[in-house]
Amino acid sequence: MSFTIEKSIEILERTPEVLEAMMKNISPEWTENNEGGETWNVFDVVGHLVHGEKTDWIPRVEIILSGTPDKTFKPFDRFVQFEESEGKTLPQLLDEFKKLRKKNIGVLRSKNLTDKHLEEKGVHPAFGEVTLAQLLATWTVHDLDHIAQISRVMAKQYKEEVGPWIKYLRILNL
Amino acid sequence: MSFTIEKSIEILERTPEVLEAMMKNISPEWTENNEGGETWNVFDVVGHLVHGEKTDWIPRVEIILSGTPDKTFKPFDRFVQFEESEGKTLPQLLDEFKKLRKKNIGVLRSKNLTDKHLEEKGVHPAFGEVTLAQLLATWTVHDLDHIAQISRVMAKQYKEEVGPWIKYLRILNL
Repeated sequence: MSFTIEKSIEILERTPEVLEAMMKNISPEWTENNEGGETWNVFDVVGHLVHGEKTDWIPRVEIILSGTPDKTFKPFDRFVQFEESEGKTLPQLLDEFKKLRKKNIGVLRSKNLTDKHLEEKGVHPAFGEVTLAQLLATWTVHDLDHIAQISRVMAKQYKEEVGPWIKYLRILNL
Repeated sequence: MSFTIEKSIEILERTPEVLEAMMKNISPEWTENNEGGETWNVFDVVGHLVHGEKTDWIPRVEIILSGTPDKTFKPFDRFVQFEESEGKTLPQLLDEFKKLRKKNIGVLRSKNLTDKHLEEKGVHPAFGEVTLAQLLATWTVHDLDHIAQISRVMAKQYKEEVGPWIKYLRILNL
């Protein structure tokens, strides 16, 4: 399937609603337990998504479209949500994510991006040149990746409870 | 986390809403393409969930709670949705799933299951004795497994489009 802005926005604008459907008013055991060790729980994942809306996706779009000679992105901090989410509740994070996402889709639409813009480049600190289209495709897939992760983290809370069915449930073996 | 009926229903009752949020009115390219080869597309997965509501979960609950001496489950047909979904649209399948799930949760609640019921057993055709609690936990995890699968099938439509980011996106490497 080839990239388009509209197909990407179709996913991006659904994510806040998907997250709400998955976890609004759910028992805290589903969202406060992780997969063991240093893994993230659902609350951590939502905090990570909030942080991305603030510092990752749209700021990188701006760098690519800017006239500055150095188009290197700032590295994205994958652990800062542990501080930033402190003292917040899951409903607060979901609400914050929803508002930020809505605003960011508005910013994206307001740029009226053409095919020419989509080929413009920035520099990723780890692997070099990337296009605007690749950045926007990644933003989209990143949402889906974390929706799958949330499903997995929740599913693993019942890892023992399914008994011998464990071998039929791929998600418990990832 | 230990099994309870109520925590299981929390997931089971959300799934129709999660599926709707993920795919209602989305471009058909997201739901009609698969992961390649003989894999399922999103439409196939929803058809599989519909079929499970009709022939798998509640019928197996009934077998376990019945007084019949042979409590062997009928094998679940994992491919029948290719016939059963024929001629239907995705919105029709989503609607069918929503109604069946609502009815089935009603049936489950109406049984007023006690801890003693949860320990009652049926016989899985492949791996033998399983308890009612294990069946209900599996129903719950099965939903989450397919939500993760749907995210993955959608994400893979952009596998080429993310460029070098592919190595950071776990979902594209599953």
